[in-house]
Amino acid sequence: MQKHITGFSNPTVKYLRSLRDKKHRKRVGQFLVEGLRLLEDARECGRLPQTLVMAENRAPHDLLERLEAEVAAAGGEVITTTPDILSKITGKDNAQAVAGVFDEWDTGLEALDRAGAPIWLVAQALRDPGNLGTMLRTCDAVGAGGLILIDHCADPFSAEAVRASMGAVFTVGLAQARWEAFVPWLRAGEGQLVAASLRDAVPYRGADYRAPCFILVGNESQGLPEAYEAECDLRVTMPMKGRADSLNAAVAGAVLAYEVLAGLGT
Amino acid sequence: MQKHITGFSNPTVKYLRSLRDKKHRKRVGQFLVEGLRLLEDARECGRLPQTLVMAENRAPHDLLERLEAEVAAAGGEVITTTPDILSKITGKDNAQAVAGVFDEWDTGLEALDRAGAPIWLVAQALRDPGNLGTMLRTCDAVGAGGLILIDHCADPFSAEAVRASMGAVFTVGLAQARWEAFVPWLRAGEGQLVAASLRDAVPYRGADYRAPCFILVGNESQGLPEAYEAECDLRVTMPMKGRADSLNAAVAGAVLAYEVLAGLGT
Repeated sequence: MQKHITGFSNPTVKYLRSLRDKKHRKRVGQFLVEGLRLLEDARECGRLPQTLVMAENRAPHDLLERLEAEVAAAGGEVITTTPDILSKITGKDNAQAVAGVFDEWDTGLEALDRAGAPIWLVAQALRDPGNLGTMLRTCDAVGAGGLILIDHCADPFSAEAVRASMGAVFTVGLAQARWEAFVPWLRAGEGQLVAASLRDAVPYRGADYRAPCFILVGNESQGLPEAYEAECDLRVTMPMKGRADSLNAAVAGAVLAYEVLAGLGT
Repeated sequence: MQKHITGFSNPTVKYLRSLRDKKHRKRVGQFLVEGLRLLEDARECGRLPQTLVMAENRAPHDLLERLEAEVAAAGGEVITTTPDILSKITGKDNAQAVAGVFDEWDTGLEALDRAGAPIWLVAQALRDPGNLGTMLRTCDAVGAGGLILIDHCADPFSAEAVRASMGAVFTVGLAQARWEAFVPWLRAGEGQLVAASLRDAVPYRGADYRAPCFILVGNESQGLPEAYEAECDLRVTMPMKGRADSLNAAVAGAVLAYEVLAGLGT
């Protein structure tokens, strides 16, 4: 279906704008993705937007035309509008010339195939959507199965997380669970739980990592609760040569993940 | 000097607010730091704010009282104001109860002592202040001498960079230079320039790193210019198992820095 919108007060414009708000995203189960590059990443991973919104003055582009055709063929909606309205929808002065609305997907633990990858990242109470997206991107780079979000984390479907993931939100696994649900799921199968810790820990370099290895990273300001660390099968320390006793959460996860990757020899 | 401010249109309030703007910061050579924790980091590193701004209803706090006394003793200004005005100054709804104004310091290459540390991070055209601050934090963690910003980077004295650095902006070295000035400086002494690259590169793991090792990381979206890579003494590849061909810039710098740290055996 094709539609052209010229009015700021159009209900569709209001709906699309509302997707910037997490509460509204959760209520309707949809999220907005900006920019052709991310939309192409999604398409290559078999995910098409339900709705495609394009600026009417956009430059012609083969990829965009193909995307438009595929969305229409799949029964989706294609909307053209003014650059100003597109800016209003995305909340940016220099809006991308295209955005897409996707259905959120199932992020239950059951959807993960733990045997499908040697490494998994697990983040607890991660608050920063940029860190979250960066961890998704790291998952892609190290061949991890995906990211498991424990307790109350930032929204992986926020514009900032999607952008920081550089498309990895579409390519790697994603699950959300309470700790009380995660631990029984983990213990019901193979899996080594590893965290960086100062308590009863061995050097991270050359530690005895085993696949599937679940790398647990704690909240940006609080770190991991003691009980969560106690649950780990392996606690490792990383050198901290300066005044601070911790790294940025996404950095810590990545340094550990690359060490595990080398240790597993995959 | 003690001062109490109650009016939104007070010139001091206007001045403090203006420090959120990079152009204004550069013109006056000052920047604003929010929160007692960062102010304490600065104090421990021997840097006191010229001006301390506190909410009048703040809870009593030993550290804050000491800071207040030290700022006054050093001839600085101590201002109390309403929480609303403090929010207006910092641009945040939930402002910290205290902020401080610091003089920017010399960020010329000459101020760095390259022999003083085995590792240095070098970022080229880094645009994201969060990444910049995270790299400063990583410098602290790996015992790097500091961060050298090449070409046009984000402002290390922006609130976001200072916050992401977790105080490391005060503890590690910081320099800003054009590439055309950096290379002669580097080549005038000891120093191995290393970058992650896909061209003519060896595996990053166990590569022949030598102190002082300068780890060069490129712009978030463009990566390093080819000529910059060509200047490197060592080009290394990191495993990229997924669809993407790069990591987040701060993550790439940190994974490399930890590998160099292990390789140098420091």
